[in-house]
Amino acid sequence: MNDQVLARVADTIAERRAAADPGSSYVAKLAAKGLDAMLKKVGEEATEFVMAAKDGDAQKLTYEAADLWFHSLLALAELGVRPEAVLAELARREGLSGLAEFASRPKE
Amino acid sequence: MNDQVLARVADTIAERRAAADPGSSYVAKLAAKGLDAMLKKVGEEATEFVMAAKDGDAQKLTYEAADLWFHSLLALAELGVRPEAVLAELARREGLSGLAEFASRPKE
Amino acid sequence: MNDQVLARVADTIAERRAAADPGSSYVAKLAAKGLDAMLKKVGEEATEFVMAAKDGDAQKLTYEAADLWFHSLLALAELGVRPEAVLAELARREGLSGLAEFASRPKE
Amino acid sequence: MNDQVLARVADTIAERRAAADPGSSYVAKLAAKGLDAMLKKVGEEATEFVMAAKDGDAQKLTYEAADLWFHSLLALAELGVRPEAVLAELARREGLSGLAEFASRPKE
Repeated sequence: MNDQVLARVADTIAERRAAADPGSSYVAKLAAKGLDAMLKKVGEEATEFVMAAKDGDAQKLTYEAADLWFHSLLALAELGVRPEAVLAELARREGLSGLAEFASRPKE
Repeated sequence: MNDQVLARVADTIAERRAAADPGSSYVAKLAAKGLDAMLKKVGEEATEFVMAAKDGDAQKLTYEAADLWFHSLLALAELGVRPEAVLAELARREGLSGLAEFASRPKE
Repeated sequence: MNDQVLARVADTIAERRAAADPGSSYVAKLAAKGLDAMLKKVGEEATEFVMAAKDGDAQKLTYEAADLWFHSLLALAELGVRPEAVLAELARREGLSGLAEFASRPKE
Repeated sequence: MNDQVLARVADTIAERRAAADPGSSYVAKLAAKGLDAMLKKVGEEATEFVMAAKDGDAQKLTYEAADLWFHSLLALAELGVRPEAVLAELARREGLSGLAEFASRPKE
């Protein structure tokens, strides 16, 4: 479902990070380079997100948001943080208490 | 119900943007200031995300990711983009085809 | 006496950082908050620089560049780096060898 | 002199931008790609500046500041802004009135 995309992307990231061959995927390559390489991408994608918004280009903004969220998931993984924890924090702030409870549960 | 959180946060943003009184909420205030104010926050929160990661502080990184995703949702709303579209793009890239299909459906 | 401006601004920053009262100036206040507060401003000003450029607004871009350079001078000061060292590095890269030599000299 | 580094770097940028062959230099290549490519680099270098500062690495911070200032000079050139105008704005703010006057003069 819609609801599981971030969790599934995080799973995929975890699998690729664990791959023996650093050259086997984009994730493995970036993981081999280390945290700074991921964070540099976060800064770069945030800038591209800003530029797409200034262009008023909704399609490009969608792609750049995907890039930004993806690279933030990579950095979160580096520190052992699951997207569920971020979503639980968002739900908590918004007073979506049922959702917060759900989001913070370990996925089955 | 994880990513349902993003859709629900987007719903809340849409409601608050539509509020008569610009001073009634953080979202309404930022919406009244316009797109540049939201994008400035995206840049600022991306920087704080990077700093929390450099500190190796997983808890702080979780909060900063929530801030970054929240402010990117605000800018997406300004251009009429729903988080479901971003999740569908992420699912499409990761070859999560069933998930992509689901995510791109209009929510009921 | 153009880049002399950067050296003089760095002198002013050093004086204000040394001020007894943290509330006495913008620089003293930011210095009291610490490095992260300065770096957050660098990220914010870089974003505003990008937005002004996207707007094609040369006057605003000039102000934002001043903001960006000023806050980078603050962070440089926090690590004990003088603008002369940055200018010497720029001159070295551009093959402006006489300038590099000059720039790297301690100012009298 | 130290004072002329930014102006001289801007001169070099102007010459390279004017070069017939876009592949002839880094500046010509980036200019051929357009403003967004320069601004993306500004965002990237701002992030690297932040990371070097967090590392407490003064040498690396000096290089990253040079990168950040250089790419901001590229974007300024794209909008026809000379570094002298930025320095004049900095001098004006700091009350360095004699320097402001100097910096804003057209260079001979």
